[in-house]
Amino acid sequence: MAGSIGLTRICLLQATNNNNGAHLNYERDNIRNMKGYVSGEQPERPDIIKLNTNENPYPPTPAVGEALRGIHIENLRRYPPPTALPLRQALADLHDIEASGIIVTNGGDELLRLLLATFVAPDEKIATASPSYSLYEVLANAHGCTMVNYPLQADWSLPVDFAERMNADGIKLCFVVNPHAPSGTLVNVETLGALAAKFKGVLVIDEAYVDFVDPSLSYSTLPLIAAYENVMILRTFSKGYSLAGLRMAYGLGSRSLVDPMQYKTKDSYNTDLIAQTLAKAAIEDQAYAAATWQKVRNERTRVREALVTMGFEIPTSQSNFLLARVPAEQSAESLYLALKTAGILVRFFNVPELQDRLRITIGTAEENDRLLHSLKGLIAAPGKS
Amino acid sequence: MAGSIGLTRICLLQATNNNNGAHLNYERDNIRNMKGYVSGEQPERPDIIKLNTNENPYPPTPAVGEALRGIHIENLRRYPPPTALPLRQALADLHDIEASGIIVTNGGDELLRLLLATFVAPDEKIATASPSYSLYEVLANAHGCTMVNYPLQADWSLPVDFAERMNADGIKLCFVVNPHAPSGTLVNVETLGALAAKFKGVLVIDEAYVDFVDPSLSYSTLPLIAAYENVMILRTFSKGYSLAGLRMAYGLGSRSLVDPMQYKTKDSYNTDLIAQTLAKAAIEDQAYAAATWQKVRNERTRVREALVTMGFEIPTSQSNFLLARVPAEQSAESLYLALKTAGILVRFFNVPELQDRLRITIGTAEENDRLLHSLKGLIAAPGKS
Repeated sequence: MAGSIGLTRICLLQATNNNNGAHLNYERDNIRNMKGYVSGEQPERPDIIKLNTNENPYPPTPAVGEALRGIHIENLRRYPPPTALPLRQALADLHDIEASGIIVTNGGDELLRLLLATFVAPDEKIATASPSYSLYEVLANAHGCTMVNYPLQADWSLPVDFAERMNADGIKLCFVVNPHAPSGTLVNVETLGALAAKFKGVLVIDEAYVDFVDPSLSYSTLPLIAAYENVMILRTFSKGYSLAGLRMAYGLGSRSLVDPMQYKTKDSYNTDLIAQTLAKAAIEDQAYAAATWQKVRNERTRVREALVTMGFEIPTSQSNFLLARVPAEQSAESLYLALKTAGILVRFFNVPELQDRLRITIGTAEENDRLLHSLKGLIAAPGKS
Repeated sequence: MAGSIGLTRICLLQATNNNNGAHLNYERDNIRNMKGYVSGEQPERPDIIKLNTNENPYPPTPAVGEALRGIHIENLRRYPPPTALPLRQALADLHDIEASGIIVTNGGDELLRLLLATFVAPDEKIATASPSYSLYEVLANAHGCTMVNYPLQADWSLPVDFAERMNADGIKLCFVVNPHAPSGTLVNVETLGALAAKFKGVLVIDEAYVDFVDPSLSYSTLPLIAAYENVMILRTFSKGYSLAGLRMAYGLGSRSLVDPMQYKTKDSYNTDLIAQTLAKAAIEDQAYAAATWQKVRNERTRVREALVTMGFEIPTSQSNFLLARVPAEQSAESLYLALKTAGILVRFFNVPELQDRLRITIGTAEENDRLLHSLKGLIAAPGKS
């Protein structure tokens, strides 16, 4: 379409001329000045090995397929359950909490946006410990509020006196992604509890990758939502349940946080009937999902060890990706490009604090083998990367 | 769940006590003060005749079922097309415009919300001609902007000097639902074009019910989006394509309006892979959809004539519902309640300007027969309504 000036475009230009010749700009100032979110590349080519956007390498449970075949399209004629109550009840059973403490959203993006829309006025400030998920800043810009970045410590642990500094700065809401992206490191529950207790704003713990945490760590922030009214936990079906294409996530928290979003600020029917049905089928097969998580953990250990042997420096990851600092004589960007040429996509972030690193999603054993094989060749060949 | 005080709740009360005994309120002022949207009742009972929320009485095309069966759940593992390009291309072909002039949204609600988020600052004003769709005011309250209601004329036509008055009042965006809800009346394209030409803000023409307009009227606002950069048309799959459960809608407009929403303010992956696929199948079977629209129109004429014979006063509807002023000696609220007792849901709006009316969705011939039969009995029996 680009490059062709069709009839519509010509009419539009005429219309613009009718409007006194000026191309009109109706955007709010903050929208005009902001940049949109840039997601990882999503190539159409099926032969590409895609290790750049942290999807689960295994398909969803066959129970999702059965649920799909059980959908009667006649039921699509009517509006879906507005607050996804059947799914919320299943989630409540899974987590042993009340359904009233759960909000189901159209992907995690919606929950993050709702948190700003509901609890932060456009002239107020939010925070994160940086580097972090780049969407947070995009959402802040779209909302018109200010994002304050507090740098993480060198070992990726939270900033010293984080709560005190945020309170002093009047921060209304803080996003902490745990396990952390892009490093994969995990902050423990005690640290988060202490943060929640001291921080005067809303603490959002974005657990998009929590399913990949080693179960031996007994990591669970669920006690925090019972103990602290200001804590909201984000969970998603995109990664752990292999359903990124379905756009389903949920928030767990006190009714002080859930109710205003559930009954006031979310779109009236924010998730559709099919997505609600399939998501319910997915969480009801915990055994299948847990098996995929364990396979990812096993591969995570294997890939990390192989990369460390090659000279990469990688913090311990509790997620389904590794943040790998490339060997001293290598360029992360060149390796990213060379891998892309070889049909393997990983993520390179062109920001100062991450310029010597690649973020690599854990794939299937075969995909990981191909990655390791390619990297070995690239690193061995002098001058090629 | 209500009434039982489980462990979670007890912990929460303790936590609240830890927070100096005060129940914390994190909501923004405008959110705390607003009321959420109240949708029409959605009863679980399958034997209820549901003529209260304007769904299409006929199921979606069987092509939607085929598309559903063609979904491979393995493809749900990855993120969906972020701007629903395959669907937008099919819509572009249908409307003979460019795909760049189309934004696909998670139901019409999302598009309405995005329009405020993108083009209206929280301290600015928006408008509608009232009475109108009650969600507009809820969205304004959630956004923190001011809604100005300009009363429609007695015959439901737009206010005199509408554009001039809005310009004088500094209105940034105006919602006009056409065919009008809740009256079902239609404003013609020339009137809308004149409004677009004069109004200095963004004119949103909410065409949720446009598919039910009599084709002999040759109503089409598509030329307006080519002629006026400030016009956005809303279309939905919920009514005309019998897919309310799927949450799919779209906006048509100039790139000045579409681009900022498409690339900045909408959630990155706002519609899911299955919904995109099924919506595409639905619009590609125009013959099926058009046949349901014609059946609704035929029934609309029949039901209206029968109700007028009973003494109801009903403006000519170009939608899939009728706004019926009850006969002089009747109470609309009593008739609504009596119908509900009889297993028939219609819509009663408890607001001053609509208190003597019922909004009745056109159902199947059988459903309409039962409605007419019940109403006849209720009106004939003195003192019973």
